[in-house]
Amino acid sequence: MMEKGNNEILEKLLKKEIKPYQLDDLVGEKEAIELRRKYIEKISQVETKHIGHYTIDEKEAMKKNIENMIGAVQIPLGFAGPLKINGKYANGEFYVPLATTEGALVASVNRGCSIVTKCGGVTVRVIDDKMTRAPVIKTESVIDAVKLKEWIKENFQRIKEVAESTTRHGKLIDINPILIVGRYVYPRFVYKTGDAMGMNMVTIATEKACNFIEEELKKENINIHTVALSGNACVDKKPAGINLIEGRGKSIIAEVFLKEEEIKKYLKTTSKAIEQVNMYKNLIGSAISNSMGFNAHYANIIGALFLATGQDEAHIVEGSLGITVAECTEDGVYFSVTLPDVPVGTVGGGTRVETQKECLELLGCHGGDKALKFAEIVGATVLAGELSLIGALSVGHLARAHAQLGR
Amino acid sequence: MMEKGNNEILEKLLKKEIKPYQLDDLVGEKEAIELRRKYIEKISQVETKHIGHYTIDEKEAMKKNIENMIGAVQIPLGFAGPLKINGKYANGEFYVPLATTEGALVASVNRGCSIVTKCGGVTVRVIDDKMTRAPVIKTESVIDAVKLKEWIKENFQRIKEVAESTTRHGKLIDINPILIVGRYVYPRFVYKTGDAMGMNMVTIATEKACNFIEEELKKENINIHTVALSGNACVDKKPAGINLIEGRGKSIIAEVFLKEEEIKKYLKTTSKAIEQVNMYKNLIGSAISNSMGFNAHYANIIGALFLATGQDEAHIVEGSLGITVAECTEDGVYFSVTLPDVPVGTVGGGTRVETQKECLELLGCHGGDKALKFAEIVGATVLAGELSLIGALSVGHLARAHAQLGR
Amino acid sequence: MMEKGNNEILEKLLKKEIKPYQLDDLVGEKEAIELRRKYIEKISQVETKHIGHYTIDEKEAMKKNIENMIGAVQIPLGFAGPLKINGKYANGEFYVPLATTEGALVASVNRGCSIVTKCGGVTVRVIDDKMTRAPVIKTESVIDAVKLKEWIKENFQRIKEVAESTTRHGKLIDINPILIVGRYVYPRFVYKTGDAMGMNMVTIATEKACNFIEEELKKENINIHTVALSGNACVDKKPAGINLIEGRGKSIIAEVFLKEEEIKKYLKTTSKAIEQVNMYKNLIGSAISNSMGFNAHYANIIGALFLATGQDEAHIVEGSLGITVAECTEDGVYFSVTLPDVPVGTVGGGTRVETQKECLELLGCHGGDKALKFAEIVGATVLAGELSLIGALSVGHLARAHAQLGR
Amino acid sequence: MMEKGNNEILEKLLKKEIKPYQLDDLVGEKEAIELRRKYIEKISQVETKHIGHYTIDEKEAMKKNIENMIGAVQIPLGFAGPLKINGKYANGEFYVPLATTEGALVASVNRGCSIVTKCGGVTVRVIDDKMTRAPVIKTESVIDAVKLKEWIKENFQRIKEVAESTTRHGKLIDINPILIVGRYVYPRFVYKTGDAMGMNMVTIATEKACNFIEEELKKENINIHTVALSGNACVDKKPAGINLIEGRGKSIIAEVFLKEEEIKKYLKTTSKAIEQVNMYKNLIGSAISNSMGFNAHYANIIGALFLATGQDEAHIVEGSLGITVAECTEDGVYFSVTLPDVPVGTVGGGTRVETQKECLELLGCHGGDKALKFAEIVGATVLAGELSLIGALSVGHLARAHAQLGR
Repeated sequence: MMEKGNNEILEKLLKKEIKPYQLDDLVGEKEAIELRRKYIEKISQVETKHIGHYTIDEKEAMKKNIENMIGAVQIPLGFAGPLKINGKYANGEFYVPLATTEGALVASVNRGCSIVTKCGGVTVRVIDDKMTRAPVIKTESVIDAVKLKEWIKENFQRIKEVAESTTRHGKLIDINPILIVGRYVYPRFVYKTGDAMGMNMVTIATEKACNFIEEELKKENINIHTVALSGNACVDKKPAGINLIEGRGKSIIAEVFLKEEEIKKYLKTTSKAIEQVNMYKNLIGSAISNSMGFNAHYANIIGALFLATGQDEAHIVEGSLGITVAECTEDGVYFSVTLPDVPVGTVGGGTRVETQKECLELLGCHGGDKALKFAEIVGATVLAGELSLIGALSVGHLARAHAQLGR
Repeated sequence: MMEKGNNEILEKLLKKEIKPYQLDDLVGEKEAIELRRKYIEKISQVETKHIGHYTIDEKEAMKKNIENMIGAVQIPLGFAGPLKINGKYANGEFYVPLATTEGALVASVNRGCSIVTKCGGVTVRVIDDKMTRAPVIKTESVIDAVKLKEWIKENFQRIKEVAESTTRHGKLIDINPILIVGRYVYPRFVYKTGDAMGMNMVTIATEKACNFIEEELKKENINIHTVALSGNACVDKKPAGINLIEGRGKSIIAEVFLKEEEIKKYLKTTSKAIEQVNMYKNLIGSAISNSMGFNAHYANIIGALFLATGQDEAHIVEGSLGITVAECTEDGVYFSVTLPDVPVGTVGGGTRVETQKECLELLGCHGGDKALKFAEIVGATVLAGELSLIGALSVGHLARAHAQLGR
Repeated sequence: MMEKGNNEILEKLLKKEIKPYQLDDLVGEKEAIELRRKYIEKISQVETKHIGHYTIDEKEAMKKNIENMIGAVQIPLGFAGPLKINGKYANGEFYVPLATTEGALVASVNRGCSIVTKCGGVTVRVIDDKMTRAPVIKTESVIDAVKLKEWIKENFQRIKEVAESTTRHGKLIDINPILIVGRYVYPRFVYKTGDAMGMNMVTIATEKACNFIEEELKKENINIHTVALSGNACVDKKPAGINLIEGRGKSIIAEVFLKEEEIKKYLKTTSKAIEQVNMYKNLIGSAISNSMGFNAHYANIIGALFLATGQDEAHIVEGSLGITVAECTEDGVYFSVTLPDVPVGTVGGGTRVETQKECLELLGCHGGDKALKFAEIVGATVLAGELSLIGALSVGHLARAHAQLGR
Repeated sequence: MMEKGNNEILEKLLKKEIKPYQLDDLVGEKEAIELRRKYIEKISQVETKHIGHYTIDEKEAMKKNIENMIGAVQIPLGFAGPLKINGKYANGEFYVPLATTEGALVASVNRGCSIVTKCGGVTVRVIDDKMTRAPVIKTESVIDAVKLKEWIKENFQRIKEVAESTTRHGKLIDINPILIVGRYVYPRFVYKTGDAMGMNMVTIATEKACNFIEEELKKENINIHTVALSGNACVDKKPAGINLIEGRGKSIIAEVFLKEEEIKKYLKTTSKAIEQVNMYKNLIGSAISNSMGFNAHYANIIGALFLATGQDEAHIVEGSLGITVAECTEDGVYFSVTLPDVPVGTVGGGTRVETQKECLELLGCHGGDKALKFAEIVGATVLAGELSLIGALSVGHLARAHAQLGR
């Protein structure tokens, strides 16, 4: 099926006379993909039948999402819903697309959606919204480090102007905290990034800001230099206390009140059993394990939603942080999920890939002015999935507790 | 394109007379998928053109990987390599498939592969291999909690037999640590799970073990009951100190020695600059942020590899933990990545989905007796990606440091 | 030696007709102490010869520092110094009193003082200064929680007035962060407390502020109530990420530059060996142990200084947090200690006890306008102690490394 | 008052012709103390009246506990009790000496003692008992690191013999975990140390073991060397996840069941209010603050007990870790404290200082075979203090909750 010319190119690849990434310019995107695939098939002695099938636009993908492209991976896509959401931006019933290969996950989330919807829906709020970048800047002494910190505070408006000159959508809203260790300074640049997740945007803006700060301090005879644009206090794609405490991306809280009769009818358990499972497992179990995830499985739901909607898969790490609360009330249970660190966007990055875009569209969440709505859907869906699992566990807890007493 | 009968079903769906998941039995998998997709398209008033396209076997997917299926998401797939690996199981040059929508990631990993390959390749070892499940068991008093702990230690062989009776591949190798908080006990069951990631396997085995323990202690008049099969000391899909310290999944270390001339030639920087960036950013920056990830971006590489090869996306959380070391030696730099918590498999779960399976096959890693080889490839690829980024940052560090001095 | 009347009272104590604490009013402080001591001696069948000896003023102690007093414990007191300090407030040579029972500690700190003094002294800065209290407030829903947070931000000036009405020295400078979990709100009240450590002051001020907030929100028909004046986000006397990141008490950084020849002469080691020991032990060793103390033994020095000067012993916990940096420079080593969380005072609490007061006076640090000076001395002394230990370890490292090569 | 000869010596001190520590040999301990005190009084221009008063034996103190001695600090000493304890080693009513300068602390603990004693006393168990030391050993490559780990496991008995040859009381019971980061190995040596806290003992034993391991591996042509006898995975005097999880020193759990009528009568609150305060504050509040102390104020009680009984004050840090559980039962509340990391001894160190020794004697805990009994008393006292505070807070919670409803 390959043309003769391509066979020659393949030979050259194998002889390492040309490099795989050079093919894009040489033969065009579509051919390049096929040739590269053939090339590694040849080397691996493996014939592939599926990764070469895709309908997404390879030109766009290669411009924005991938290099050395050889095709696409297909992740099974299901949905959960309807899920009734009472948000500030998301209101009504939603059908939530979930991409995963973990059997039973969608069914479990779906069950949660069904229950909370019957019970009046999930209340959800985005309590904070920002993207951060924290370079590490080296100074000559703690004395200069303190001066640098003071200078940054005093010149925030000037720094803001410089940073924002690089971007249409990004707004520098704060530089806080400004951490100092010895003579190194880690100022945490905090931005609003509109509907984009915004990591690239804030990196570019922060770089310009750092250049500006270096130059200005030079004028005051203070020698500093930015060692790295990320000094790991951002903290991007790593679990971190600073994100748990300060928040990053969207900070989301979702909650539901379930009446005792509803708990009995739909979850086959009791408010007390739910409260106990949450306390022994999510609170005490995580405490003794020195965990930052005081929850059962946020990452599962975050993961399936992120893959379906083109979010950055490495941000699932941050979405795993958070605390589930279950508390008996007078006539039922208060159940909530708190997710302080969920970086998402509805424009840019993976959201433009065709299948992912369609998933966002199914939620009415593609494009501008949609990120907060999408974040609320994320929070509500996590609550549905979390309640479903904690509810199921508490059924077992109840049964075993009774069995013990029933001796 | 839809048959008339299907239109009627669609109507019933919309009237909520039948539920989406009931379609599988009613009309068969393929039709069910299409009907469900039409159904949510109708509700959402959105027409999709891409998520309905897939070549994976929907029957298998619906049996093992997804419920309420409506299609598939396509994730762009590229590759990095060749990457020379000197492992115990993986030896030679590898071309590593990476699925991501984050532009520049594959290019960066590819650059790292190229450099380490030129410098002799990556040495890598799997230093530990296990899957864990830690139920929470309630007793009546700390006195009974201590008795339970003692009983478990003394009866390990009996518990092992019971647990292993549920599985062909799983081996219970330890129950350790056995944590106690007040009167609650969290015994961490540690298994070998062969080539499967193994969460399901160990959950089933642990459940049977817990039943056995409950019954046996009842005979000794000690009332206990398992509150939840996971008491969050496992710790599954959440960042946790216990996993960092004890390990989970595969614990992997990869390293490379680069000579000063190689660093200069290929990375355009110096050993000293690499050491410093690692110290200020990965060590000190993470320390002051209370992070568990003393690295630059393990999650990026873990994420792209996990998606390509059908690993559980929520496990990217655990793969983000770990420590990068960069240390000047007499004539260059010692650079290593330590990943204590990488749950992976080469059979079961998402590894059977056709595109993912092909990616594993391209690595020579699909099926039995391949998990350790695959884990070594993961470790080596993470090193390549980490070195590439830290190297790039240190170029900037060097340039800026010189600029500062050059005043 | 006891009077007859006292014997009768002792009998009554033993018959539980009167309670030990009632003695203060009954017989006066001095007699009360003796009677209580006799009482527990009698019960314990132990005769004491030392705890009854003390010179501190028991009346004052019983008013402010202790209840049910039976005497005093004597802690051996030594000193380290002279220690040359280049601070903003502490300048010159200091002789630092240290109370401890751990043999060799004072000698080690003393050695560190001697070395850094010979090398020009320690530069030290207090980079932050505050005391915090974070109540937990329950609201009815996340919606109200968000309203409460907004209200607090908007009404900061009014809250400030109310809080400051309770204290002469305390100033409310910020309420930040305001954490929300589900429907619970944890606003972190941040105060300047002058020369007092200030916990009591800020608790009283925060209580009044909470009452005010409750009442004001009631007017807006928002039902909230303060569950506890400390919601554990303060975080008082417990190790916590939020204190590491945000700081608490005095945040102190001390540093010294040592030349290679000085390192050789006084420490018998090299800059490289110091850097390596710090990296393997304090940075990487603490990282893999999930520790918040990236240092060798801050708590030792903090502890001995706190006991000598009447600081709260439970605050040693917070003083153990922090990061030691050692980094080769062109001609030596940069060595620094960063202590983000050191709660200290020079008035109030234990600083008024006579022996402790004298220790503060020896430092020129008792009374008003001395807290920052004292904090600088603390930081400089910690550096001396840390350098002494890391230096000693690096001598061993060097010797063993040579032995290995010398085979 | 000073003799003429001493005046001359003082002059020499001031002229720096002799050093303060040289006085011990020159004029004897007592005179040396006085001269040093005069010396720093002179320099500081401060006259002291109290620190020179002490009754403890200065010869012994200077041999074992302090250098450069100038006197003693007096810490006010009170007591709490009677406290009824149902331990394995401590049984009956105890009067617990507490040394502190924090007003109201003793009164609060005393109130807790009174309540739990009326309610049947505290059940307490030491669930683990060990002292640890974890050196950091450098190898040439991860390959050697793995070999070293294997070698240590295989040769445990030989290492044990070598280590135990240095001590009469220390027993090496395990080397676990053996952490590896890159090419560095951190084997955690676990000892029983009898009634001594044991840090010195295990350091000496571990040093000999390390020498042995180095020599043996040299024979097998594996180059390793111990960089530092403590690689910070011990973890001594720093808060750390590994201690929370694995335990260190004595791991202690104390518990009490309070009936609803008792809670009402003695604590003036309800089981529900206690459970809630514990959940919002100790569990959720600590979780969101990234704290390792899921308790209200363990450090306060640990601190006062440690000072009274001659424990190492820097170990208060470790005693601050732990989790308080409060859980409604059918007719009251289950309340427990879990302290995984409490290093204590009843021989050696500060326990020999006369006043501290007397405090231990009052508890029947000085000398051999007493450490476990003492640990139980510590656990029970912490419970009393914790219950007292949580109880008091819950009274306020209840009142405010009622006020809110009562509008």
